[in-house]
Amino acid sequence: MRKEINNISCVGSGTIGAGWIARLLVNKIKVKVYDLTPFQETRLKIVIENTKSAYKNLFPNKKINFENFEYYNEISPAVENADLVIESVPERLDIKQEVFKKIEEVCSKRTIIASSTSGIKPTDLQKNMQNPERLMVTHPFNPVYLIPLVEVVGGTKTKGNFIKKMIDFLNSIDMKPILLEKEIEAFVADRLLEAIWRESLWLIKDGICTTKQLDDIVRYGFGLRYAQMGVFQTYRTAAGEGGMRQFLEHFGPCLSLPWTKLMDVPEFNNELIDLISNQSDTQANGLSVTELEQIRDKNLVEIQKALEKNNYGAGKLIKKAREKAIP
Amino acid sequence: MRKEINNISCVGSGTIGAGWIARLLVNKIKVKVYDLTPFQETRLKIVIENTKSAYKNLFPNKKINFENFEYYNEISPAVENADLVIESVPERLDIKQEVFKKIEEVCSKRTIIASSTSGIKPTDLQKNMQNPERLMVTHPFNPVYLIPLVEVVGGTKTKGNFIKKMIDFLNSIDMKPILLEKEIEAFVADRLLEAIWRESLWLIKDGICTTKQLDDIVRYGFGLRYAQMGVFQTYRTAAGEGGMRQFLEHFGPCLSLPWTKLMDVPEFNNELIDLISNQSDTQANGLSVTELEQIRDKNLVEIQKALEKNNYGAGKLIKKAREKAIP
Repeated sequence: MRKEINNISCVGSGTIGAGWIARLLVNKIKVKVYDLTPFQETRLKIVIENTKSAYKNLFPNKKINFENFEYYNEISPAVENADLVIESVPERLDIKQEVFKKIEEVCSKRTIIASSTSGIKPTDLQKNMQNPERLMVTHPFNPVYLIPLVEVVGGTKTKGNFIKKMIDFLNSIDMKPILLEKEIEAFVADRLLEAIWRESLWLIKDGICTTKQLDDIVRYGFGLRYAQMGVFQTYRTAAGEGGMRQFLEHFGPCLSLPWTKLMDVPEFNNELIDLISNQSDTQANGLSVTELEQIRDKNLVEIQKALEKNNYGAGKLIKKAREKAIP
Repeated sequence: MRKEINNISCVGSGTIGAGWIARLLVNKIKVKVYDLTPFQETRLKIVIENTKSAYKNLFPNKKINFENFEYYNEISPAVENADLVIESVPERLDIKQEVFKKIEEVCSKRTIIASSTSGIKPTDLQKNMQNPERLMVTHPFNPVYLIPLVEVVGGTKTKGNFIKKMIDFLNSIDMKPILLEKEIEAFVADRLLEAIWRESLWLIKDGICTTKQLDDIVRYGFGLRYAQMGVFQTYRTAAGEGGMRQFLEHFGPCLSLPWTKLMDVPEFNNELIDLISNQSDTQANGLSVTELEQIRDKNLVEIQKALEKNNYGAGKLIKKAREKAIP
């Protein structure tokens, strides 16, 4: 419940950290921010602008104070008194461990420390901590202010009461926490994304298609299904009344057909980097990353409003948030 | 152009064949259908009902004659005089080759033969044909009446003029044909889907998450991105102004981290089939496949209408179709 988590600090304000900050601000939560970089040079300014545009469309009547944060270039004043610290510093174990050490020096042992890591196991993160039981992974997705998913993963020393409190909090800010049963490097989403990425690299490297063609194949094809149902429910739906069992018995053996031979990782050399970068430049057709971000956000807003009409999937959360906003 | 393709026959009216038929009917094209099964027992009736509901919402003012087809239990009368035959029989090379033989016996050598295969190379399909130059793969996606993507693949003997004519035709029925440069088993979409599937099986087998959790991770997370942008454009957008090159240099090496170890195929035994089927049953929560199909279609309609608002991706095709419909 939010009542137990009043003071929130965000350590790191790159793309992911700034996304967390924006997600908190739109939920009328004051944030203390720590980043080494001067405010003007962080991603935070841009992310807040993007969030403003998106929320004007998503919740037109909602009054949001986008200046409801304090920005620090020192970590101690930014995290002292925090009930929750969200860490989004670079993906290196040593950097993260150093940050946790500093947090533990000034915070109570009941302060929840939530790491945005997309790959490092919580057991490794908490290894050197004084009070490891309050450390967990809460892995969000870019853009954090519009994508609801958070993978929640505890390490061997994490205690259930802290996880429960954090999950309640994530629900209260209209996110979708999924608690994983077991630790695994890269968790679930990035395992799936890695698998697609690996296969995509082969398809480009072997000249089967271009980056633009591959992207079109995703967004005019199965991407439209994945926005509402996932892997298993989609196949169940396609299976006919025989259901999942029939589908598995029918399609399972496909996995040993010859096209599973490309499970190797292609060599990541300059030639491959050039090939992909050049195709991607052509595909972007002159749009800057900022412009692409705005397009993406406009679409994310409309897609979620569309799902809201059917009260389904991510649209359910939007519907709930809208109902909550009614005074 | 449609003017060169007037007479169209569909061979096979299972889920995919019926989807093609529905896609043609909503485009006011008369279809001759061949299937061994009596009409009442095919998927066609159900698919037409689903299409009716979906199009009532998608194009409320469009008058569609859903009875504009003839149904045959013999192949010859169904395909004679056809300018285009769309084949959607079971995924076995011998069955498909037998069908092509029968088609060649009664059709002109200029009749285009388009196979819905999701995996077999066109060069293999056309091997024994009299006039192989008009055989190509046009791989659509379920539900064909709502998902616009078609992978178009020619074999070594396929001639460009037939491919061009077919692509023009697919565009005219508001689909999104993507012509692949090279043949490869399973083409592009199913290579990507196989990669996700393989990884998903491991995640369930190893007890990292349940089928419901995995699906939620997809549909509350990257699925919302894939409905509008694909793999490469999404990463480009996330990369910051350094663009794709920076992204590749930063993330490329991840591929050799330990989580790429699970590239093997899990053994497909009864234990795994039970595990997945049982979890999937729980997840479906009593909804029948027909009910799931209707939910899927309602969402596909709303998502594409949402993208239409921004004139983006699959929404562009809907917008174009709507404009075309204005008298």
